[in-house]
Amino acid sequence: MADYLSMGKAELEAERQRLLAIYETKKAEGLKLDMSRGKPCPEQLDLSMGLLDIKEYKTESGADARNYGFLEGIPEARRLFGELLGVDPAQVLVGGNSSLQLMYDIIAAGCKDGLGGTPWNEDEHRKFLCPVPGYDRHFRVTEHFGFDLISVPMREDGPDMEIVEQLVKDPHVKGIWCVPTYSNPDGYCYSDETVRRLAALEPAADNFKIMWDNAYMVHYLEDAPEQTMNIMDACIASGHEELPILFCSTSKITFPGAGVSALAAGPKTFAQISKSLFPMIISFDKMNQLRHVLFLKDKAHILLHMERHKQIIKPKFDAMRRLLAEGLADCGPIAHWTDPKGGYFLSLYTLPGCAKRTVALCKEAGVVLTGAGAAYPYGVDPEDTNIRLAPTFPQLGEVEEATKLLCIAVRLAAVEHLLGA
Amino acid sequence: MADYLSMGKAELEAERQRLLAIYETKKAEGLKLDMSRGKPCPEQLDLSMGLLDIKEYKTESGADARNYGFLEGIPEARRLFGELLGVDPAQVLVGGNSSLQLMYDIIAAGCKDGLGGTPWNEDEHRKFLCPVPGYDRHFRVTEHFGFDLISVPMREDGPDMEIVEQLVKDPHVKGIWCVPTYSNPDGYCYSDETVRRLAALEPAADNFKIMWDNAYMVHYLEDAPEQTMNIMDACIASGHEELPILFCSTSKITFPGAGVSALAAGPKTFAQISKSLFPMIISFDKMNQLRHVLFLKDKAHILLHMERHKQIIKPKFDAMRRLLAEGLADCGPIAHWTDPKGGYFLSLYTLPGCAKRTVALCKEAGVVLTGAGAAYPYGVDPEDTNIRLAPTFPQLGEVEEATKLLCIAVRLAAVEHLLGA
Repeated sequence: MADYLSMGKAELEAERQRLLAIYETKKAEGLKLDMSRGKPCPEQLDLSMGLLDIKEYKTESGADARNYGFLEGIPEARRLFGELLGVDPAQVLVGGNSSLQLMYDIIAAGCKDGLGGTPWNEDEHRKFLCPVPGYDRHFRVTEHFGFDLISVPMREDGPDMEIVEQLVKDPHVKGIWCVPTYSNPDGYCYSDETVRRLAALEPAADNFKIMWDNAYMVHYLEDAPEQTMNIMDACIASGHEELPILFCSTSKITFPGAGVSALAAGPKTFAQISKSLFPMIISFDKMNQLRHVLFLKDKAHILLHMERHKQIIKPKFDAMRRLLAEGLADCGPIAHWTDPKGGYFLSLYTLPGCAKRTVALCKEAGVVLTGAGAAYPYGVDPEDTNIRLAPTFPQLGEVEEATKLLCIAVRLAAVEHLLGA
Repeated sequence: MADYLSMGKAELEAERQRLLAIYETKKAEGLKLDMSRGKPCPEQLDLSMGLLDIKEYKTESGADARNYGFLEGIPEARRLFGELLGVDPAQVLVGGNSSLQLMYDIIAAGCKDGLGGTPWNEDEHRKFLCPVPGYDRHFRVTEHFGFDLISVPMREDGPDMEIVEQLVKDPHVKGIWCVPTYSNPDGYCYSDETVRRLAALEPAADNFKIMWDNAYMVHYLEDAPEQTMNIMDACIASGHEELPILFCSTSKITFPGAGVSALAAGPKTFAQISKSLFPMIISFDKMNQLRHVLFLKDKAHILLHMERHKQIIKPKFDAMRRLLAEGLADCGPIAHWTDPKGGYFLSLYTLPGCAKRTVALCKEAGVVLTGAGAAYPYGVDPEDTNIRLAPTFPQLGEVEEATKLLCIAVRLAAVEHLLGA
């Protein structure tokens, strides 16, 4: 097989016919697979059923976790998440089942009341930095609250800091979304240098915040989790303690629909957050907080638990990487993909202008992928090249089938593109 | 003993000395009681521990309640709350552990996006109607979102509808808070006539909403719950289907910190609510929804469950009423109180200008009551007469002790007031 990029029209047409025949055969198999969302599979969820065995809902101080109280979470839960996030428990709030909801509430509070600085709503031309590709639901929150979304390219060591440092000179720029460990969708980890430069930012806006969503901090696929530098420590060292707001959740440690979320921030920002959340809710679900504390215990124990997740999902990542390498060999550089050491995704990059068509071909043959463009602000990938792959939910055999089909689709879309179809 | 109101100064001073002696004796007992919040007692919470026995988290359609999905709630939970609220399950959203948070989110959505009409934020002089006395956390939500709070007097059959009908002619008036069954704090129930007149309102604002918080709909203390007329039926009958948004929760059916909340609305409003909540959260805690469905089953079963709550809390209400009658006999009309047939509170009304002093006297002697004024917008009772009493949480003996002290405090405050102290 030759390199597609050096083929003539007749050769490409012949290859198209060959691929179409394979594609139609695959399509006739009537696949019905969903790789669109970063969802744990049932076997992963079974790992946490022990969480539900707790019978006694007294907190360590003797308080009844079943009743009202403790807006900021029960002390033992604040301590657990303080250890995970590497922040003083006094600056940790433990929330409900959704860290996305906490982030939404924080962005809402920043818009309306400010988070210690001027309320963002007072700036009609407010902007937010979005490292791309990134998490669609982050971008949508800031879009919902009227921010212009400014794309910043992601590199293997984090957002392009040259560009970030330039952009924050604009006083309309109010913050940046970050997934520092095993980023969604590339699986990249921020380098120490990136974290230090983020912590050292001197934004023109007095109310700039780093939204630090460490969603996959313990979700490793190698021998141990990546040790992303602690943004709070870096910010304290640079004298910018109020810059970051840290988030995490157990959505992909225990249950996606019924986990526990947490945030942490500098003392002033934290005080303002507590004040802003007060009118909203009496208290979050502390029974679930207590269940999580008793089951997960501490960070060391969480890492052991994540080792069991790894045993279930690593073979799926490995199969996908192997089959991508096999299925896209010998056709020239029409695609490349990331090699995550953890997290829930890998990114596949097609020839420019081919991602949408690839996803459509897959869909037509029964394999649902994340919509092309989803990882970009407003759902538009300007190059139309990125596809987010989520191998955790399907069974291993399904991942294999889906990946084989995907390779055919990538090739077919490339050939069509090169033919100018 | 004579009527305080007809006593001369010397008699009042003698009475003050007599009361002070009793008060000091009580104070020396070192009471430490809290009747400030409508909290269930531990024995009530124990009634719902069976909720936690569920081992299998498959929904009736076979979906895994542990994973992402079902923003509007699992179908069986929507059906259960549909039955409770008397609304088509297709127009019911089942949320997280806090109906207050749902209400907050709805008010936020109404301000920012509108709920089918003009966003409330576009009116700088927006106002909200607050039947008083009422629930402080309702009022605070609308205060937080920049509404002027307009008090409307509560009567035994609901808010004074003559006044409401006048006020809604003002286009700045965007809605009204309602606790239609066993109102907080009076324990009053809206009459059919009140519900019909609410449903028939023709507000000048195109985006007026009735916030219908049926928090205590099944929380009866008599032989059966009050049958408050269904606001949705009344609004359909009057052609105003999009007027009400209904709320309820299991906070005082199962667990205050770990129950399930729900809302319902007309089809257009409901569609807008779903759209507004989409950027905020992937899904609420469906494991807890499923637990509640399997444990509570249906409305008939919930009423049986509430009968067991009643057996625990009715003696406390009865003791409080009896001891108020005994402790405030023979001193003339210096106080009166409501006689709730359900709910979590009763209201005590002192002489004008005596509520704060009464609460302070109680606090000084170790009995914490809800702050005087809490049931009014901005925390200010213009007459300084209302005290909210919450007898459910303390043990029966504690309720008795607290009520006896309260009677002394009411008398003492009245005498001081009459003496012009």
